[in-house]
Amino acid sequence: MKEKNIIELFKIITKDLTVPSFVKKGIGEDAAVLEIGGSYYLITTDLLIEDTHFKQKWISPFALGYKALAVNLSDIAAMGGKPEYFLISIGIPKDFSSKDIDELIKGLKKIAQKYQVFLIGGDTVRAEKIVINITVLGKTEKKPFFRSGAKVGDIILVSRFLGDAAAGLAILENNLNQKDFLSLINAHLFPEPEVDLGLYLAETQLVHAAIDISDGIASDLMWICEESNVGAKIYKTKIPISSICKKAAHKLNKNPLEWALSGGEDYALLFTIPPNALKQIKEGIWKKFKREVFVIGEITEGNKVLLVSEKKIIDISGKGFSHF
Amino acid sequence: MKEKNIIELFKIITKDLTVPSFVKKGIGEDAAVLEIGGSYYLITTDLLIEDTHFKQKWISPFALGYKALAVNLSDIAAMGGKPEYFLISIGIPKDFSSKDIDELIKGLKKIAQKYQVFLIGGDTVRAEKIVINITVLGKTEKKPFFRSGAKVGDIILVSRFLGDAAAGLAILENNLNQKDFLSLINAHLFPEPEVDLGLYLAETQLVHAAIDISDGIASDLMWICEESNVGAKIYKTKIPISSICKKAAHKLNKNPLEWALSGGEDYALLFTIPPNALKQIKEGIWKKFKREVFVIGEITEGNKVLLVSEKKIIDISGKGFSHF
Repeated sequence: MKEKNIIELFKIITKDLTVPSFVKKGIGEDAAVLEIGGSYYLITTDLLIEDTHFKQKWISPFALGYKALAVNLSDIAAMGGKPEYFLISIGIPKDFSSKDIDELIKGLKKIAQKYQVFLIGGDTVRAEKIVINITVLGKTEKKPFFRSGAKVGDIILVSRFLGDAAAGLAILENNLNQKDFLSLINAHLFPEPEVDLGLYLAETQLVHAAIDISDGIASDLMWICEESNVGAKIYKTKIPISSICKKAAHKLNKNPLEWALSGGEDYALLFTIPPNALKQIKEGIWKKFKREVFVIGEITEGNKVLLVSEKKIIDISGKGFSHF
Repeated sequence: MKEKNIIELFKIITKDLTVPSFVKKGIGEDAAVLEIGGSYYLITTDLLIEDTHFKQKWISPFALGYKALAVNLSDIAAMGGKPEYFLISIGIPKDFSSKDIDELIKGLKKIAQKYQVFLIGGDTVRAEKIVINITVLGKTEKKPFFRSGAKVGDIILVSRFLGDAAAGLAILENNLNQKDFLSLINAHLFPEPEVDLGLYLAETQLVHAAIDISDGIASDLMWICEESNVGAKIYKTKIPISSICKKAAHKLNKNPLEWALSGGEDYALLFTIPPNALKQIKEGIWKKFKREVFVIGEITEGNKVLLVSEKKIIDISGKGFSHF
């Protein structure tokens, strides 16, 4: 949902307006950043529309509530912030029963409690299709990560396996036995925002740039390159793909690399750090979370995202999933 | 758009969550209120959906952009705040041309410039019908007005003529000659949020409770009564109705009082003050804005909104326009 149209729209609207100096970032980031009294306040908004972003056939109201908030928390996580509050607007069709609404609320509540974010406002209206708009406010005392901070020579990391969410959707769409691929389906329906990892990384003050992978790594890494005026090289053999994702791809006669690169909705963190910070970051994350993060490439000069394999180098700049 | 459903939803979600003490208001107000460093930050969100809230037939893209932001600024005005930033999510159908989008942006920009509010974020997606969600952040150093502050004996005022917006819509729907009723059509398409009046009233620190009239006075006054645990009496002869509104009603064989009481979308301020503050408020507003405000009744004990005319007293509690 990081379409370029909104950026064009920003530029047009703000053209003749002077934006106050404490608006640190508005355009082109995961969230807007306001500096108030030494703290950074982060604000993000996302619009989900039935049949554009999801189909009721493949997502339960509970999962829809969970996921709608999760993807917004992920935007705050991508800037190293702690999500604190949310507002939700819901358009509800007539055939969405009160039991469905209860379930949707339960899903929202589940993740709101998990991350201790508080509902502070909203709007409910009648609609023909389900419409959900969530605005999340977050905060950080540290400098937020921006997409624009990447430097030539930086190492590029991702926080977990890629492609699982796209694989999960494919399994639902193709009516494969869900029991065999539960972790993939969960990756699609219940994405985990990297809030805790983002907060940890913010503490280290070592991150140069970050984004969450919502549209696919090819597309999201391109955002970092564009905003930072750099290029990137990633290595085919280093893209972390789970064995169950490979198994699903085999069964569906798909290339799992494609899911990993442009499937989207993984909501992993993609971040860049200077090479000399790698050891500290990897050891720190292992110590705190007992988990790995994966080096997939490096920031280069230029303005392209290149995928390097044994045999060839392919330009994959911006080849992501897009709703537009 | 102040449906009760969202309040029920709040209550369910927040049931087991402890809301931090600096969240001053969330449920049941025009905007949520966060107290940060001695200032009050106000946040409101509204979802507009084609064919639920508007029809393309009767509103140009320019007016749609203007109005979508105006109604959100009105929520901030109703709490005595200065709107500062907004985020916009837009769902755009395929048949909405790029010229239409340009016009919509021009409308947004027109009112954004007028009130010096800055676009800081957003989302654009594909949709079957136009969907617009706007979130506005505002601020006040003074104590915000709440719906819950009305006291028995308070005088109830409205800031301008009521019913014009509903009359304007009726004229469009009935294909009357627009030139004869331009001010009514403008009241419907280009509602003016009472930002400056709200800021002035906040300065006086005399207002007990306030709301903006989005659903109609019967319904919106009921909100104040419910939140304040009081009743209200308003006088038929005191409801301010413009002569052009009466003229339109005559032509369409309608009762203008009905438009004024339950037509909605006037976005006038409705506020209550102690009786001894009336002179100061009226004189102050006249001095600053060269305009009148209208006393329409008083806050009473009980829990009903009563309309008093020469012959009878009618219970009009909550008889407003509602999208649900």
